[in-house]
Amino acid sequence: MIYFDNAATTYPKPPQVIRAVDEAMQKYGANPGRAGHTMSMETAEELYRCRTAVAEFFHAPGPECVVFTLNCTQAINFVLKGVLKSGDHVVTSNLEHNAVMRPLQALQKRGVTYTEAQVVPGDNDATVDAFRKALRANTKLIVCTHVSNVWGIRLPIERLAALGHEYGVPIAVDCAQSAGVLPVDMQEFQFDYLCVAAHKGLYAPMGTGILITPHGASMETLMEGGTGTASISLEQPETMPDRLESGTINIPGIAGIRAGISFVKSKGIERIYRHELGLIQALYRSLSKMEGVQLYTPEPVEPYFAPVLSFNIKEANSEAVAQRLNAAGIAVRAGLHCAPRAHESFGTLQQGAVRVCPSAFNNMNEIRAFSNTVMKIHRK
Amino acid sequence: MIYFDNAATTYPKPPQVIRAVDEAMQKYGANPGRAGHTMSMETAEELYRCRTAVAEFFHAPGPECVVFTLNCTQAINFVLKGVLKSGDHVVTSNLEHNAVMRPLQALQKRGVTYTEAQVVPGDNDATVDAFRKALRANTKLIVCTHVSNVWGIRLPIERLAALGHEYGVPIAVDCAQSAGVLPVDMQEFQFDYLCVAAHKGLYAPMGTGILITPHGASMETLMEGGTGTASISLEQPETMPDRLESGTINIPGIAGIRAGISFVKSKGIERIYRHELGLIQALYRSLSKMEGVQLYTPEPVEPYFAPVLSFNIKEANSEAVAQRLNAAGIAVRAGLHCAPRAHESFGTLQQGAVRVCPSAFNNMNEIRAFSNTVMKIHRK
Repeated sequence: MIYFDNAATTYPKPPQVIRAVDEAMQKYGANPGRAGHTMSMETAEELYRCRTAVAEFFHAPGPECVVFTLNCTQAINFVLKGVLKSGDHVVTSNLEHNAVMRPLQALQKRGVTYTEAQVVPGDNDATVDAFRKALRANTKLIVCTHVSNVWGIRLPIERLAALGHEYGVPIAVDCAQSAGVLPVDMQEFQFDYLCVAAHKGLYAPMGTGILITPHGASMETLMEGGTGTASISLEQPETMPDRLESGTINIPGIAGIRAGISFVKSKGIERIYRHELGLIQALYRSLSKMEGVQLYTPEPVEPYFAPVLSFNIKEANSEAVAQRLNAAGIAVRAGLHCAPRAHESFGTLQQGAVRVCPSAFNNMNEIRAFSNTVMKIHRK
Repeated sequence: MIYFDNAATTYPKPPQVIRAVDEAMQKYGANPGRAGHTMSMETAEELYRCRTAVAEFFHAPGPECVVFTLNCTQAINFVLKGVLKSGDHVVTSNLEHNAVMRPLQALQKRGVTYTEAQVVPGDNDATVDAFRKALRANTKLIVCTHVSNVWGIRLPIERLAALGHEYGVPIAVDCAQSAGVLPVDMQEFQFDYLCVAAHKGLYAPMGTGILITPHGASMETLMEGGTGTASISLEQPETMPDRLESGTINIPGIAGIRAGISFVKSKGIERIYRHELGLIQALYRSLSKMEGVQLYTPEPVEPYFAPVLSFNIKEANSEAVAQRLNAAGIAVRAGLHCAPRAHESFGTLQQGAVRVCPSAFNNMNEIRAFSNTVMKIHRK
């Protein structure tokens, strides 16, 4: 199988990640922070190492800012529901995943309004300007993706963060597609809330998400429960990360995050990015020569694109094309990729699109095989 | 190490659980329900097998009623926040974990009130009566634990469910301590919402919880996001389990749940219960002979008790006693066990207590070693 569905989750996982998960189940098998016995302490120490590794990787102010969640969607929900109140306004982009759009839609019923700013690929000035114009007096948050999970378009998030801070508006960034592929420096970029799908570019197991924020203590909680701290109180503690981490967390998965980060660091983010972008650029060039193949975005060049590319073959249903690719042993994802707004922006809401996303494990031979298969499907 | 901290999480996990998690990372590595390619479909099939195994095990109306969460705390939060509105009243018990109490406390600020009914160990009539008296015209939910995570006291949940249905009040049961140890039949017991910590009595990895309910479609959602279904809509779908399962779920952990259920079924719930209760009864008899050892509950007999026992040595700080046990190679948990209301009911809010909870892997020799160590600590 040639696996190009890495935007949904990366596969394979590096052997050290699989080993770390296995080791955690055998060695770090007690509930951390719930007891003082040796294995509980050792598990707590491993958890702290994981938290510290995440904090260092994203240059967070400290490990206490790192909250482990089930997935990136939970992290985004924590932020949106933890920050926004009735009467507040939010600025987002026209390229968001349903992980952002559906919570915003739900918040609309509670009196929160939002504006979608148009992202202009290849023109960051125009994009920043669109966000500026969307700001209102009651704007309390900018929330946007770092990279479109459909089109690979990179948003100028550093400039959007600076814009927000100019107007006193915090920014939450959905780094589901970028973490592990693009540099993300929480402090340098001035992010207030950083949401990560660790099972994608950090190569951790599915079921692992991360929220990083220095503002946790002042957030409203979406969920409360036992934290192993301040147990005498029925109030959720204000201390972080406990405030946002109730109940038993996914220790094996979290150990997998740490191993995944080690893998990414050993490869080097810059090298991973150049490798994957090189593959996508080669694919783009190849597909752009095929008559009848529809590409929607300009050539994926730095710094405007991340290694995700979507296309169609004539008017063919994207799911049908994906089925043909699957029959040839190639795994991609077609349809709407949980991002109807991003598809509507490019006129593909009905047809969907075929999405290709490589990981560090893919190579140029696979891209060639992919192109050849598309050509064959196209000719039929 | 002698591990008696199984009420926090079971350890060790059965080899087949560790294998299932490992296999899932290698074989079921694509995101299920997000694509039509072979590995995604195979992962979706494994997920469906897991959902079906859970539904069968708890005799749920169907696999679509089974929602996989990060932990039992999330499942409880989903129910409480998904059902209760301003003006509603809830009846709960005086033995609840903070996983129930802290969300109730948070809901109080939004106009929800609650009453704690007193559980009378060994007198189910009195307990049911206390719940009946606590009901009001605006009571919209009964929520209570199946088993006290501190005292092992079993609540007569079948009768409480019947009481609720008599008055048109649904019941949510926290089966964190009971699932896998006591029979739990969703339909026979008439539970509306069943919350499970799969990493305890089902021997799954940490980071796995389950909510089972036939009422999911009408619940308010706490979180929204991509579900891989109805992607064109910005509204969270009403179909279950999608409605309550946004974002990428923990496939390796869920595969572990299925393997854990197989393990429990191969041992037999009834046999596990008798084995563990036998250990706790032996411990109780042994401790009750030691002068200066304080036991708080009557002898743990069927059907009033589950295999969890807490005690103290004179006025000694419970954490200090646990440290002494740890030095002798025994892992227990002291303090408040995230259940301050349960401790207050027995006068141990200041001292806490030392808690012992066996799993299927413990044996009588370990109970003897434990008793001997307590005797030594006690003499000093």
